[in-house]
Amino acid sequence: MNTATATPTATATAFETLQVRREGGVLHVTLDRPEARNAMTMAMVRELRTVLHDAQSGGEVRVIVLRGAGGHFCAGADLKDMAAARMRAAQADDRQRQVEPAVDPMAEVNARFGELCVAYAGTGLATVAVLEGTVMGGGFGLACVVDVAIATDNVVFRLPETSLGVVPAQIAPFLVERLGYAEAKRLAVTGGRVYAAQAHALRLVHEVHAPEALDAALARVLHDILQCAPGAISSTKALLAQARFTPPSAMIPAAAAAFSRSAHGPEGIEGTAAFLAKRKPKWAPQ
Amino acid sequence: MNTATATPTATATAFETLQVRREGGVLHVTLDRPEARNAMTMAMVRELRTVLHDAQSGGEVRVIVLRGAGGHFCAGADLKDMAAARMRAAQADDRQRQVEPAVDPMAEVNARFGELCVAYAGTGLATVAVLEGTVMGGGFGLACVVDVAIATDNVVFRLPETSLGVVPAQIAPFLVERLGYAEAKRLAVTGGRVYAAQAHALRLVHEVHAPEALDAALARVLHDILQCAPGAISSTKALLAQARFTPPSAMIPAAAAAFSRSAHGPEGIEGTAAFLAKRKPKWAPQ
Amino acid sequence: MNTATATPTATATAFETLQVRREGGVLHVTLDRPEARNAMTMAMVRELRTVLHDAQSGGEVRVIVLRGAGGHFCAGADLKDMAAARMRAAQADDRQRQVEPAVDPMAEVNARFGELCVAYAGTGLATVAVLEGTVMGGGFGLACVVDVAIATDNVVFRLPETSLGVVPAQIAPFLVERLGYAEAKRLAVTGGRVYAAQAHALRLVHEVHAPEALDAALARVLHDILQCAPGAISSTKALLAQARFTPPSAMIPAAAAAFSRSAHGPEGIEGTAAFLAKRKPKWAPQ
Repeated sequence: MNTATATPTATATAFETLQVRREGGVLHVTLDRPEARNAMTMAMVRELRTVLHDAQSGGEVRVIVLRGAGGHFCAGADLKDMAAARMRAAQADDRQRQVEPAVDPMAEVNARFGELCVAYAGTGLATVAVLEGTVMGGGFGLACVVDVAIATDNVVFRLPETSLGVVPAQIAPFLVERLGYAEAKRLAVTGGRVYAAQAHALRLVHEVHAPEALDAALARVLHDILQCAPGAISSTKALLAQARFTPPSAMIPAAAAAFSRSAHGPEGIEGTAAFLAKRKPKWAPQ
Repeated sequence: MNTATATPTATATAFETLQVRREGGVLHVTLDRPEARNAMTMAMVRELRTVLHDAQSGGEVRVIVLRGAGGHFCAGADLKDMAAARMRAAQADDRQRQVEPAVDPMAEVNARFGELCVAYAGTGLATVAVLEGTVMGGGFGLACVVDVAIATDNVVFRLPETSLGVVPAQIAPFLVERLGYAEAKRLAVTGGRVYAAQAHALRLVHEVHAPEALDAALARVLHDILQCAPGAISSTKALLAQARFTPPSAMIPAAAAAFSRSAHGPEGIEGTAAFLAKRKPKWAPQ
Repeated sequence: MNTATATPTATATAFETLQVRREGGVLHVTLDRPEARNAMTMAMVRELRTVLHDAQSGGEVRVIVLRGAGGHFCAGADLKDMAAARMRAAQADDRQRQVEPAVDPMAEVNARFGELCVAYAGTGLATVAVLEGTVMGGGFGLACVVDVAIATDNVVFRLPETSLGVVPAQIAPFLVERLGYAEAKRLAVTGGRVYAAQAHALRLVHEVHAPEALDAALARVLHDILQCAPGAISSTKALLAQARFTPPSAMIPAAAAAFSRSAHGPEGIEGTAAFLAKRKPKWAPQ
C-alpha cells in the first residue's frame, strides 16, 4: 500500500478504484472510475470492504464519507464485470453436469455486493454519502445504507434493474430500511426514478444543495457528528438496528446495560467532566 | 361468465359488483355500486378475489388498476351485509348452546375481507389504485395495499370504525404497511380523516391531480410499470415483503439466488440483449 | 393524596413533580419542575407511572395529555439524580468484589425510565403530548410514545446523549417507532437537533401552532378522539402494535376476533344504534 502523509493528521492511501484520504477522524472515500460514472466493479466492491475493515480496526477513523469522482456518485454494477460473471456461470453450468454442488458465479458476485451493503449498513462508524448526478442500481443501494445523505440539486436516482429484466435484489432490504416498505415497493414497480426535490421529501436524501454549497454542507454535517462520542454513536446504532425487529419491551435490559456501560466508561466520564467544567469533551474538535 | 372481446387485446368480463376490462397487460377493475358509493358487499369481496386469482393464473395481466364508479372509490363495508352477518351471528349464538365449536359469522365475514387485502398486498402483479371522493374503512384498506396510489384533489380518507364502536381490524396491518406504525396509530385514535394534500404528504397517495388530469396521470404510471419486466417485478416485491421482517444480513442468500435466477432467466437474457442492441425489451410497449 | 373536586367531572390530584387534573374523560398531566425545565427525576418517573396505572384501572380516563409547566416540555434526565445513581453505582462496584450477582444502580434507574416509556407506548388509552420549548433526551422519548403530538413553533428537539458520551438507550426503540429506523439513525449520529418545521415534516410532531393557538388545537384533537369509542381505540392500538412485527397474513384470525368482539360488544351495539337513529353515541360529547 502506497501511503503518503500530507499533514500530521491527514493520510492518503492508493487503491485501484478508489481515492482514499483521511483528515483527522474523517475518511474521505471517493469512487474513482469517472469514465464509467463510477460503476462498481468486483475490484471496487473488494476495495470498499477493505477500506471499511481497515477503518474499523485502525481506531483513528470515526466517519466515512462516500462520494463519486467526476460529478456522479455511482451508475450501479459494471456491465462488463456482469458479463464476465455470466460467462463463468455458463461454464459452471457445463461443469454442473459432472460435479455437485455447483457454484453459481452470478449469485456469488451478487452476494459479495450484498455483504458490502450489510457491512456499511452495520458499521459502528458514522457514515455519510455525498450524492451528485447519477445514483443508480447498486449506487442507489449504497446511498441507502449511510447514516446521512446530502445531495446536489442535480442528483437523479434510478433503479433500472427491473427494466433490464433483473431484480434489485441485494438493494431491496436497504430500500425498505431507508424508505419504508410501501415507498420501496412503489419505486421498484415503477422503475424508481427520483429527482432531488422528491428524494428530499422521501428522506432518501436529508439535505439538498446547489453544487457550490455542497462542501460547506458536508463540513457542517461532519462538525455535528464529531461533537458526538464515537463509542456512544456505535452503541446507539446497534440498539437502533436491534429495535427495528424487536418489540420495545424486550429492549429494556439491553438498553439499560448499554446506557450503564457508556455512563461508566471513559466517554461517559469525560462527557460529564467536560459538561461540569463547561469545556468541550476531548472527542470534539477544539 | 359473459366475455366480450372489443379489440384483439381488450376483453371485458361481466360481474355483479365490478366492471372488469383488460387492455393488453392492464386489467381495469371498477368497483361498480355507485348508488352505495361502491360499499363492499360479500359478493364484491368474492368477485375481487376471483378477478385477482384469474389475473394471476391467466398469464396475460401484468397490472391491476382498481377504481370506483361514479366519482367515489369505496365507502367501506356495506352496512346491510354487516346487519345480515350480525343476524346470523345472533342465530349462531343460540345454536352455540347446543354444539361446539361455534362458528362466528361476523368474524368469518371479517376474515374474508382480510384475506382479500392479504391477496392483493401479496400479489406479484403490479397494482394501482385511482382514488376519488370517498375512501373509507375497507376502501381505505384497499387503498393501502396497492403499489401505486394516485388521487384526485377531492379525495377524502376516513376511518369511521372506532366512531361506530368497532375496530378497523383487517385494515390495521396495511395502515402500518403504508403509513408506518406511528402515523397509523395517530389516525386510528383520531378517526382518520385525511384530505388530498395531507394524504400526499403522508404518502398515503403518491400523486394528486385535478380530476381532468387523472387519466393522463394513470397512463404515465402504467407506462412506467410496463417498462419493467413482470417476473422481475414479482420477485422484487417478494424480496421487499421479506425484508420488512428480516434483518438485511439474513437476506443475502435469498437475494443472490433471486438475482441469479432473473439474470439467467428469459427476462434477464432479453433485457441484456435489448440493452446491447439499443432497442426496447419485448415486454415494453413498442 | 390531596384531591380537590372543582366540578362534577373535574378532579385535581396533588403529586410532588406533576400537576394532574381530570376534566371528564381527559386527564391533563403537567410535568411540574419548571425551575429545571421539567427535567425528569426518579420521583417524576414513578409518579408518571402511578398516574398511568390509576388512569388505566379507574375506568374514567380515556385520554392522557402530557405537557410541561413554564413553557418547556422536558429537558431529559435530571443530572443530580444521575449523579446520585452514579455514586450508588460506585459503591456497588466496591461491594461487587464481595457478593454476586452485583446490582447496577445506573442500569436500574435507566430501566425504570424504559419501563415508563413502554407503559405509555403500550397503553390502550389515547395519549397526546403538547410540546413547547425544550424537548430533550428522555423528554424526546416521551414525545415519541404518544399517539398525537402537537407543538408550538418554538419547539426544539435535541438528543444530547452522544455528545455527553452516553447512549440514548431507552429512547432508541421509540425513535424507531416514531421516525423509522433511518431517520432515527441520522438523528442519533448527528446529535438530533430538530426545529418545529422539520419536526413536522418528519412527523415527529403532527401539528405546529403559534403558542396562542395551542389550546384551541388541543381542544380539536381531544374532540376528535372523544368521538371514538374507548374500547375500540384500545383494541385498534393493540392490533397496530402487533402488526409492526407480524406479517399481515398472520394477523387475520386475531383481527377477525377483535372485530367480532367489538361488533358484538356494547360499543358496537351502541354505535350501530346511534348511527341508525342519527344521534351521537353515548361516548361522544353530546
